[in-house]
Amino acid sequence: MENKKTLKNKAKLLKIYIGESDRYKAENLYRAIVKKAKEFGLSGATVLRGIEGFGLHSDYRSSLIEVLSADLPIVIEIIEEEEKIKKFLKKISPMINQGLIVMCDVEVIKHV
Amino acid sequence: MENKKTLKNKAKLLKIYIGESDRYKAENLYRAIVKKAKEFGLSGATVLRGIEGFGLHSDYRSSLIEVLSADLPIVIEIIEEEEKIKKFLKKISPMINQGLIVMCDVEVIKHV
Amino acid sequence: MENKKTLKNKAKLLKIYIGESDRYKAENLYRAIVKKAKEFGLSGATVLRGIEGFGLHSDYRSSLIEVLSADLPIVIEIIEEEEKIKKFLKKISPMINQGLIVMCDVEVIKHV
Repeated sequence: MENKKTLKNKAKLLKIYIGESDRYKAENLYRAIVKKAKEFGLSGATVLRGIEGFGLHSDYRSSLIEVLSADLPIVIEIIEEEEKIKKFLKKISPMINQGLIVMCDVEVIKHV
Repeated sequence: MENKKTLKNKAKLLKIYIGESDRYKAENLYRAIVKKAKEFGLSGATVLRGIEGFGLHSDYRSSLIEVLSADLPIVIEIIEEEEKIKKFLKKISPMINQGLIVMCDVEVIKHV
Repeated sequence: MENKKTLKNKAKLLKIYIGESDRYKAENLYRAIVKKAKEFGLSGATVLRGIEGFGLHSDYRSSLIEVLSADLPIVIEIIEEEEKIKKFLKKISPMINQGLIVMCDVEVIKHV
């Protein structure tokens, strides 16, 4: 494949914390972010759903009341080179009106 | 809101690994920790449940035998400034009789 | 117990990103890795299953089509001392034909 790409040794882990019910236009925000990540040519994205949590408005989100609230916490993890992450953040930052984005250093051991 | 707070650029990601069936007094330990985090004024907490794992006693925890064991691994993630994390740890450390707590540096990109 | 072990202050968080349907011989790859981790005497391993994501072949993996694809993203987290992690990686690296392995520094706060 022409766009076969492997990450370099030093990369960044981007973690995006949002709510499952957060929307971007007509769709789920987390799905919109994953789509953007794919369009942008990032090497991957993983969406994890929590069973409970609270965020910026200190509202509980619990799977016990999932039927009512349907707003469980979502964590999106993306591993990519720093420069690419920074460009990608410019794209998605305006989509996120509520949430937390953090980044940390990782050493890439294997990427196949 | 008076307690509107945003995290500074440098923060810590706290990760707490416990079991789903671990208890603190009359309730689930993970729920008790999330409550304490909220009471303590932390900016957020996210609870993730694993589908399998093993911990300090090397006992398998698998979702295949969830009905029997109901002890899947739980990871709680909290992002906060270091000083506040350290004070919070003093509160919750006595609640955790079995588990693993780690912390790593993160750069806060956005917090809204 | 004779093999009671506690992690030192400085350790590594190993994160392994694979697909749920990835196989190693007759079993699920993630389960094979957890077994190896246990055999190898690591202090723990946690398997998280994502609800959506894409990986190296840019194929969407979504829980909406779980019945059809059954290939949701898996993240395995292991916290261990660096030397032990490196030896463990030699064991499991040949098992992973497709995936991403990263490592970052963590400070161990409590391990009981």
